[in-house]
Amino acid sequence: MTQLDKITPRDVDFSKWYTDIVLNAKLASYAPVKGTIIFRPYGYAIWELIQKQLDLEFKKINVENVYFPLLIPESLFNKEKEHIDGFSPEIATVTRVGDNQLPEPLFIRPTSEVLMADFFKTEVKSYRDLPLLFNQWANVMRWEKTTRPFLRTSEFLWQEGHTVHDSKVQAHDFTLKILNIYETFVREFLLLPVIMGQKTQKEKFAGAHSTYTIESLMYDGQALQCGTSHYFEDNFSKVYDIKFQNKEGKLEYGYSTSWGVSTRLIGAIIMSHSDDNGLVLPSKISPIQVRIIQIKDTDEVIKISESIKNMLSNKYRVDIDKTDKSFGFKISEAEIKGIPLRIEIGPRDLEKKVVVISRRDTKEKMEVNINDVEKIVDSMIKAYDENIFNLALENRKKRTTSVNSIQEYKDVLNSNQGFILVPFCGEVSCEEDVKQQTSTNSRCIPFEQENKNMKCFNCNKDTKMQVYFARAY
Amino acid sequence: MTQLDKITPRDVDFSKWYTDIVLNAKLASYAPVKGTIIFRPYGYAIWELIQKQLDLEFKKINVENVYFPLLIPESLFNKEKEHIDGFSPEIATVTRVGDNQLPEPLFIRPTSEVLMADFFKTEVKSYRDLPLLFNQWANVMRWEKTTRPFLRTSEFLWQEGHTVHDSKVQAHDFTLKILNIYETFVREFLLLPVIMGQKTQKEKFAGAHSTYTIESLMYDGQALQCGTSHYFEDNFSKVYDIKFQNKEGKLEYGYSTSWGVSTRLIGAIIMSHSDDNGLVLPSKISPIQVRIIQIKDTDEVIKISESIKNMLSNKYRVDIDKTDKSFGFKISEAEIKGIPLRIEIGPRDLEKKVVVISRRDTKEKMEVNINDVEKIVDSMIKAYDENIFNLALENRKKRTTSVNSIQEYKDVLNSNQGFILVPFCGEVSCEEDVKQQTSTNSRCIPFEQENKNMKCFNCNKDTKMQVYFARAY
Repeated sequence: MTQLDKITPRDVDFSKWYTDIVLNAKLASYAPVKGTIIFRPYGYAIWELIQKQLDLEFKKINVENVYFPLLIPESLFNKEKEHIDGFSPEIATVTRVGDNQLPEPLFIRPTSEVLMADFFKTEVKSYRDLPLLFNQWANVMRWEKTTRPFLRTSEFLWQEGHTVHDSKVQAHDFTLKILNIYETFVREFLLLPVIMGQKTQKEKFAGAHSTYTIESLMYDGQALQCGTSHYFEDNFSKVYDIKFQNKEGKLEYGYSTSWGVSTRLIGAIIMSHSDDNGLVLPSKISPIQVRIIQIKDTDEVIKISESIKNMLSNKYRVDIDKTDKSFGFKISEAEIKGIPLRIEIGPRDLEKKVVVISRRDTKEKMEVNINDVEKIVDSMIKAYDENIFNLALENRKKRTTSVNSIQEYKDVLNSNQGFILVPFCGEVSCEEDVKQQTSTNSRCIPFEQENKNMKCFNCNKDTKMQVYFARAY
Repeated sequence: MTQLDKITPRDVDFSKWYTDIVLNAKLASYAPVKGTIIFRPYGYAIWELIQKQLDLEFKKINVENVYFPLLIPESLFNKEKEHIDGFSPEIATVTRVGDNQLPEPLFIRPTSEVLMADFFKTEVKSYRDLPLLFNQWANVMRWEKTTRPFLRTSEFLWQEGHTVHDSKVQAHDFTLKILNIYETFVREFLLLPVIMGQKTQKEKFAGAHSTYTIESLMYDGQALQCGTSHYFEDNFSKVYDIKFQNKEGKLEYGYSTSWGVSTRLIGAIIMSHSDDNGLVLPSKISPIQVRIIQIKDTDEVIKISESIKNMLSNKYRVDIDKTDKSFGFKISEAEIKGIPLRIEIGPRDLEKKVVVISRRDTKEKMEVNINDVEKIVDSMIKAYDENIFNLALENRKKRTTSVNSIQEYKDVLNSNQGFILVPFCGEVSCEEDVKQQTSTNSRCIPFEQENKNMKCFNCNKDTKMQVYFARAY
């Protein structure tokens, strides 16, 4: 039980609670280089389930996987002014090999637009070569001052998609198609309700024409960006000279996009769904969906455990806890690890032909006839996932406020942290002013807009646009 | 047809032929940083198929996937003397982030024994925690003077397994279990016959107690190491202080292993099976196993193409070449890409209810009744794979020589390059002497031994051991 005692209550210290869960559920450990983490088997298994589903979705729309190098020559990177300005303070740089200084410093990719663009430049010749739809699952590095496992680490794992198209419309549509894939995935698999929208000029990706995003709200009321999809128009193509012969035989710059989600999604899952007893994992990305715990390991209990495991294994990831730990410890461990359902099997229950199934989220327990186990597991998993999603949605609703002035905005920040919807002019200087006053940024211009005449909450200019602001991870 | 013209004949210039295939089959492209490559979709798809199968095999024996960081502090790496001596000239080093010098240089992992050991040190407490069976799919970096796509690149992709056990026997058995998984995979999936054995003292992995290997022979008679499995005994545990309480309650050092295969396997496939027309891919790792090419796209041809594709898709990876290229170009392209079977469908054949199936390896063509397509594809794929394996095996037999003296050895090196089996004393100094005279190393001490009394081929000492030497990639 010692493990359980270590989890700080969520409402006492959210940040400490988060770290306790990461370490106690054995998702990750700290590594020797500051800001880097070790993905332990349980944490990595969640990432593998995320990868598997997204990879499937990408392949359905003909995206092809590739792998581009880790290192980018400094001179190549520096061609795109906005891009280098956005990333350069965070770039880890290789300057020597063994005892030899390199003739040119090499950057560890913070993202791969530049290398992709350099490849597309020679690859793209005609409209017949387009679209080129690439994705890679890779590690990237951005040196961060303040780090936290999964949420912000110097090295992280992600997928980065990079595409080139022969028209603005195609490229822009593709950017949104990916955003929709992200939203569906995050909603159905991670059970996170998100707001879809566009980033403001100030918050868009370095070098992009426009950035689209899905934004979720964590339990503590801080926002987290779950995925972004960038439309570059021909910005990168002009800098890196990506030209194709169009159907009219004329040379035209290609239209490109890039998009990514990362291992910070694991952080989002933790901070949205978990509780004081540990992780609560959405069933679809839970490495173990059902754990069988034997109250006593009699022959009959072992036999029934194995047969229930086999029966459920066609549909679910099931295991039996066969360790020699105490029953109580096994229960706590299943809770810390966020396993959606536990089936407890004991000799006395078996006399009545029943087992006990409990849900991780509500702690609800049910005596179930052995013959009904599969049916009940189906319905309990469904109810479990629905409940988790609804709790996150309710939290977001409770923590979403609409205000019209900077004073009201500041008041809300101090009373009910969360998404704050405001009428906003959209100007960079005005957003910088808000940031200076409140240390908050906009999260997105939601696609859903009321289109009424309003005044910017900060500068009072006329505007029709509503924007979500929030403190964010 | 221009693409085909570019492939240099294999017997004219093997090295140029190899590069031509890599580039023309669009497996990889050169990247801006010397010695790094871009894995293009077709090359990466092969790697994904390799990963999928090996990952399945590892998971069957309870190996868990993890992800450890890219960067290792210099001071941590330098603890293991042999290890650092083996790798240090090849290590890419991060010394700054943005404009700031780092307080300590950070090494980009050339392999992860050190980070794993540092983790195991705190993780391993009791025999109950063991074995720990970890694997990661990751990029690593070793700066090489002479590079070649897939075979030797500064950055490469691989899997690296790292395990800790509570006894020498368990650890050693596990090392060999992995070697057997590699051998089976390489034989069945890549169709490469290999020699299994142990590395000599001179050739073993830096820091290992013993290294086991599978060695294959390329078409040109040079050997290639396809995979290695290292038994460390308690070497790393002593240096990194990995101790556990054994069943008797006493502290004991853990026994560790590591093992890996890399993207150089793709190079091995190319150099073993391909020919003057391009790649020849083993069916199990061919991204496309059957390509349908329409001689004319009449309604009937399109209908039958789709129905054959659907029928075969339950078992095979099938596509239809729907590009507007010429028929001849489509044939050449399917050949360059090494697609095992082509099905050509035309209106005149359809009148006779037949299609034509051709094999990439032998160029054999067969008129097949539409109703028999599935059955014939099954048998042709089987025959195709058998033939490819046998060709590689015959090449190896033809190029394997047994000699007893250094003079004979030198003669063979100049006449029939390949595996050369010699009686060898096994001493490091003697092997260094052979290297100085001939620029060749031993490949392995094969498990199969005759155990007769012999004299070392170089120093004439008594020995019972036979060893394979060869020039190698």
